[in-house]
Amino acid sequence: MKVTENPLSFFALGGINEIGKNMYVVQYEDEIFVIDCGGKFPDESLLGIDLIIPDLTYLEENRDKIKALIVTHGHEDHIGGIPYFLRKLSIPIYATKFTLGLIELKIDEHRLRGDTELLTIDSNTKLEFEKVQVSFFKVSHSIPDCLGVVFHTPEGNIVHTGDFKFDLTPANNQYADIHKMAEIGQQGVLALISESTNAERKGLTPSEQMVGSHMDEAFIKASGKIFVSTFASNVNRVQQVVESAMKTNRKIALLGRSMVNIVDVAMERGYLTMPEGMLIDASEVDKLPAEKVAILCSGSQGEPMAVLSRLASGNFRDVTIYPGDTVILAASPIPGNEKDVSKIIDNLFQLGAKVIYGSGSTTGMHVSGHGYQEDLKLMLTLMKPTYFIPIHGETRMLHHHRMLAEAVGVEKGNTFIIKNGEVVDIENGVARQTRSVPAGDTYVDGMGVGDVGDIVLRDRKQLSEDGMLVVVITISKADRKIISGPDTITRGFVYARDSDELLKEVNRLVKTTVNDLQSENIHKWNVMKQNIKKSVGQYLFNQTKRKPMILPIIIEI
Amino acid sequence: MKVTENPLSFFALGGINEIGKNMYVVQYEDEIFVIDCGGKFPDESLLGIDLIIPDLTYLEENRDKIKALIVTHGHEDHIGGIPYFLRKLSIPIYATKFTLGLIELKIDEHRLRGDTELLTIDSNTKLEFEKVQVSFFKVSHSIPDCLGVVFHTPEGNIVHTGDFKFDLTPANNQYADIHKMAEIGQQGVLALISESTNAERKGLTPSEQMVGSHMDEAFIKASGKIFVSTFASNVNRVQQVVESAMKTNRKIALLGRSMVNIVDVAMERGYLTMPEGMLIDASEVDKLPAEKVAILCSGSQGEPMAVLSRLASGNFRDVTIYPGDTVILAASPIPGNEKDVSKIIDNLFQLGAKVIYGSGSTTGMHVSGHGYQEDLKLMLTLMKPTYFIPIHGETRMLHHHRMLAEAVGVEKGNTFIIKNGEVVDIENGVARQTRSVPAGDTYVDGMGVGDVGDIVLRDRKQLSEDGMLVVVITISKADRKIISGPDTITRGFVYARDSDELLKEVNRLVKTTVNDLQSENIHKWNVMKQNIKKSVGQYLFNQTKRKPMILPIIIEI
Repeated sequence: MKVTENPLSFFALGGINEIGKNMYVVQYEDEIFVIDCGGKFPDESLLGIDLIIPDLTYLEENRDKIKALIVTHGHEDHIGGIPYFLRKLSIPIYATKFTLGLIELKIDEHRLRGDTELLTIDSNTKLEFEKVQVSFFKVSHSIPDCLGVVFHTPEGNIVHTGDFKFDLTPANNQYADIHKMAEIGQQGVLALISESTNAERKGLTPSEQMVGSHMDEAFIKASGKIFVSTFASNVNRVQQVVESAMKTNRKIALLGRSMVNIVDVAMERGYLTMPEGMLIDASEVDKLPAEKVAILCSGSQGEPMAVLSRLASGNFRDVTIYPGDTVILAASPIPGNEKDVSKIIDNLFQLGAKVIYGSGSTTGMHVSGHGYQEDLKLMLTLMKPTYFIPIHGETRMLHHHRMLAEAVGVEKGNTFIIKNGEVVDIENGVARQTRSVPAGDTYVDGMGVGDVGDIVLRDRKQLSEDGMLVVVITISKADRKIISGPDTITRGFVYARDSDELLKEVNRLVKTTVNDLQSENIHKWNVMKQNIKKSVGQYLFNQTKRKPMILPIIIEI
Repeated sequence: MKVTENPLSFFALGGINEIGKNMYVVQYEDEIFVIDCGGKFPDESLLGIDLIIPDLTYLEENRDKIKALIVTHGHEDHIGGIPYFLRKLSIPIYATKFTLGLIELKIDEHRLRGDTELLTIDSNTKLEFEKVQVSFFKVSHSIPDCLGVVFHTPEGNIVHTGDFKFDLTPANNQYADIHKMAEIGQQGVLALISESTNAERKGLTPSEQMVGSHMDEAFIKASGKIFVSTFASNVNRVQQVVESAMKTNRKIALLGRSMVNIVDVAMERGYLTMPEGMLIDASEVDKLPAEKVAILCSGSQGEPMAVLSRLASGNFRDVTIYPGDTVILAASPIPGNEKDVSKIIDNLFQLGAKVIYGSGSTTGMHVSGHGYQEDLKLMLTLMKPTYFIPIHGETRMLHHHRMLAEAVGVEKGNTFIIKNGEVVDIENGVARQTRSVPAGDTYVDGMGVGDVGDIVLRDRKQLSEDGMLVVVITISKADRKIISGPDTITRGFVYARDSDELLKEVNRLVKTTVNDLQSENIHKWNVMKQNIKKSVGQYLFNQTKRKPMILPIIIEI
């Protein structure tokens, strides 16, 4: 019997019951390994928030034990939190060559390069720590150079899949190590930690090859210019667009900062090839015949300031979409972005463009990078884990994933559906979930990290819905008479010019409230303010059915 | 040759390039007919707005010519604006018995019943006006008692389809008048005005019958309680749930105000039948064995205060969801509601419920009420119109609908893709689009209709993203000295307790700014305020990368 209380444990600091801010932790005694450090984009209820990152409290408190930050691949929800992580923790980062390229872009933006130890690994790397060894296996996904991770611990092997699908005909040679996975499974897997994004979708994910053949077809049919919008990081798809362009004698122009930067990284590091002279500058597009050009652009998620949106509304300087041009949306809207993407499609139709859009299964222009149910079952079958922990998904996806695991033989009761922060401890081959570590959302707002919380957001919400009213009154310290005011200012509440009467009545009310209190000899500011808020609030609600924030300011002179 | 300038015209005051606030106008000389008066729910960019209704300027300016408001069916996007319409215009409303029932619910809520002339029509009604006759035909849709409208004018016949699908096996006998449509087409249609909601979707809409058989199956399989959430107004679907419950010996409870009210209207007016004693009160649910109860509830769109959401989070007083209960979502999320609906599904899984959800084509629990491409082509084929005006859809849907029309024989150039307010005039058999009438969004915010516009919304947006900072300073009129302040108050910007230093520096800056101006002998308030805004704004942005609204208040005593 071991005596250590928690020899082996696993938990998530982000990525469970959500899509985004992935961060997972494997700990064996005093060796901590962090997997991924993602960001998450806030939904519209988080007013003004720019990014959400994981709560790093546990890691900060145990900083001396952390051996590595291992990054499985270069998507935002796996690397977006890294600059904030690095400001607090000086830990070596291990990732593949392409992933490191994207991490470098990011930390350069934040001017953090100097401080960071970046270590290149590949699927053959073996890392030896004091008690734990870490090895890797290749997986297919919608970005090059993705890894799954195996932690070899004295208690047993823990496998983290990273994001994956099985694609037997991937673009750009991004094959998965199926034989190696089988071998890992044969050696015995104590716990499998596997992503769940598409656990609700039946069947097997279609192959990236499908996109290639549809892309070819669209290029052959098109007469005018062709615009293709996709995630720049989907380099394998970018490669297929390049190939369709080669077959139809079109030059390629790149529009958008992320497209230019990432293609640059990909070409420099050997993940994307283009013949000499094929790449042209945006300014050359309109000088060539329309049928000689294809344009790769960012903004496929409908981001209002990105290239595609500006092209669609005719606000892009260098390039114009003319009637008869073809626009291909080779990406699916991420949930929440549907409306912005639809707006762009509407604008493109208004310009007279031929627009190829819609779900990948309709157009053939997009396939998911995340495995469907049969992919997930294949991984579970290859790994034959004793314990199973579904991660990287909303609650319903985790539950579906559990059902899949049970269908292929994981024992009932051996799946742990945990929340961020809930720890699965494994000791003597037995897993238990009893304790938790701090976990939650840390908000990034401008320069501030974690300085905006519930009170600030609650105020923003009230301000956003009904605006505010400031009322200022100056009172003499000597005789308690009102010297000046009340004066009211409103913003976001009503049109000032239509509200003379309303605001005059507010001033009358404030005066009465103050006089009434004074006649009772009550002069405390907070009582006055409370009473002003109450009477003015009630009056405004009766008149307008709105509840602006009321800020009474009393100045004593 | 006629001499009147615009004998026959058509335009939309809402419903084009959008889904919502449908309102269409057919005018022949001095006879105006208004079709539908819908509301539209604002997206999250319209902070604090409760509802959007059409701009009624044209109708108010021509109130004496308006003969009728004809309402095709009782969905919110066709009746939601009626209370606001009635406050400005006293016009008789024509609708079928069920549609009037829903309109009455609505105007009773607004206490407007006394003033309104409500006239019951059915598909056999013929309305005779001075120059125009109006007749009707039945269409199938996802609510009972829907009509298409024919305007017989001296210039020719104009057909407005209302919302429709072709369903040859509808629930509840809601058959369309296909023979009558064929006859109308034979008589000659000058212009067809047809809805476009599903113009992007290939094939024929599935029949409501499909839902019935899947519902039966789910009821037979279920062991615990069954919850079905759907639009209350989809009475035909409610009827099918009732029938599944009868077959499996379950009683029915209704949860949610809209469910109770609309079922009430439907039963009273003969659109829904239930055996005596089948309906039980919510309070009885937990007294019966779980397998003896089915619950119909509202909230299928994820509305946070509606029943389904409260059930899913365990906050509903009378009824509880236990592990093993079945919850059926028999509705598709309207675009924009996906996240709220997903949250509910997540919560239901956490409660241990069996959840049947997802697109209708996967679960069989929902079919659209709007015709797909083949339905739309069938309508176009039946009507054989000379001119075609697609309505009720976003831009891309209108363009698809145009392509469908051309595919079945509408001449190229004879389709008018218009915007709200753009008028199609037809004279001597020739249609032209050259002029416009006022059209746009009128915002309802609390009691105010149309009193919130761009400035108020812009302020709300700024307040919502970065909050605000009020700075008050009192200056002596006599010697221009600062008597009190500067004092700062912030809301929605930063935590006050963490920002002492920041706000002290703001006060220093304000003092310096005021002193600097005074030393140059500048005492104008607006210059002072401008300079304070500028210096404080710049400082705060440098420190925080946020741009709160800055409100300087200068009091002179």
